[in-house]
Amino acid sequence: MGLAEQLTVVLHQTRSPENLGAVARVMANFGFSRLILSDPVTYSFRGAERLAVKGETVLDRMAVARDLPEALTDCVYAIGTTSRTQLKGRTYLTPEEAVGRLAQESARGRVALVLGGEQRGLSDEELAHCAEVLVIPTSDVQPSMNLAQAAGVLLYLCGREGATNPVPPALEPGARIGTLNALSQRMREAMLTAQFLNPQAPEHVLHELELTLSRARLTQREAELWLTAFKHLERAVKRGAPTP
Amino acid sequence: MGLAEQLTVVLHQTRSPENLGAVARVMANFGFSRLILSDPVTYSFRGAERLAVKGETVLDRMAVARDLPEALTDCVYAIGTTSRTQLKGRTYLTPEEAVGRLAQESARGRVALVLGGEQRGLSDEELAHCAEVLVIPTSDVQPSMNLAQAAGVLLYLCGREGATNPVPPALEPGARIGTLNALSQRMREAMLTAQFLNPQAPEHVLHELELTLSRARLTQREAELWLTAFKHLERAVKRGAPTP
Repeated sequence: MGLAEQLTVVLHQTRSPENLGAVARVMANFGFSRLILSDPVTYSFRGAERLAVKGETVLDRMAVARDLPEALTDCVYAIGTTSRTQLKGRTYLTPEEAVGRLAQESARGRVALVLGGEQRGLSDEELAHCAEVLVIPTSDVQPSMNLAQAAGVLLYLCGREGATNPVPPALEPGARIGTLNALSQRMREAMLTAQFLNPQAPEHVLHELELTLSRARLTQREAELWLTAFKHLERAVKRGAPTP
Repeated sequence: MGLAEQLTVVLHQTRSPENLGAVARVMANFGFSRLILSDPVTYSFRGAERLAVKGETVLDRMAVARDLPEALTDCVYAIGTTSRTQLKGRTYLTPEEAVGRLAQESARGRVALVLGGEQRGLSDEELAHCAEVLVIPTSDVQPSMNLAQAAGVLLYLCGREGATNPVPPALEPGARIGTLNALSQRMREAMLTAQFLNPQAPEHVLHELELTLSRARLTQREAELWLTAFKHLERAVKRGAPTP
């Protein structure tokens, strides 16, 4: 399975039916078919068909998710797109590096390319759901690209990657983001109850722990093992906790 | 002078104000400013401003040409874009090769990237005005890209070329396409009158001669020398021709 089969395009908080249609068409142009709308601003996407010339199959199969974590739930890796080059404590990839990473990670399972809404793009919090961040270098005169054109550039590069580089050998299925999020939830509960995390600000330390697991590139089996472990830990610490 | 200063985007027979606006915006995204509309299908481009977010300068400076030869007149090199991979007797370049060529030729003068209309793209005859042809590889499911997205992909690559490769040293100014077209016209007249070309089908042989001059990559000075030579030849053979 290469990038063509494993790539999911996630459009977060999309507003314009024209953009949706144009993204569906350019996905068809480069041989991609898996599209998820995450928390769309509107559900009246009738205008999309008009622009989705021969991208109707993409629209027919399109799924809608309540939020970004739900959209990413069965992916093992996600890259977020932004035009902001000043990101709090994050480095960013060039489009070519990002596409190389997507291809590499596609050996472990589904991978997501996330594009933000027309008005604000992706916030820092939304980008935090993505393992990495990419920036398409643009001019200072007009740094912000149209959504459908940004998708066009990135999907062109993804299509070319699939055509020119051999598909990497399949690896053991990677941990799905949904499973990792469930694990985080259990870790937080258990560690709060165990009074390890500061209930006023648990995020920072929790996030550091999550990052170490992310660096380990867990397989799905390993992630499930951790999840089960923390389910047991949570139950056990709750049993021992003083009744509130 | 590199590609940023020398690149002209030529939109031939554009129909949609939305596409025009989106192309202007993506030109601004990647630092290009020279846009020519060749034989536009409509002149009511009011809708374009809405989509040309911060690309207004591009629209303000935009020129309109009656046809493709007029649009290309002050360029030394032009590449046409098509989605048809079956071209009569022509080979085509990949986007990366094409952008490399544009950068290389930009050392000699202005270079043009030509995109056809929304409905038919560029015909063989229109492509004949371009020194070379490029194809963006697409899937068989939907080979035809949206105009603004094709422009997006190509201008991204042009912008990256400018950013990553050193500007080639400036060469002596290349022959402008307008001068070469004037030369062709004089060659045809002189050679018809001299009964060298078949008046029923002069094109084939004439085109072969033109190609040899094109291979020679004439400087503007050399092209003007040829032009003057053929003006004299034409006058001389017409003087000697039997009165019709």
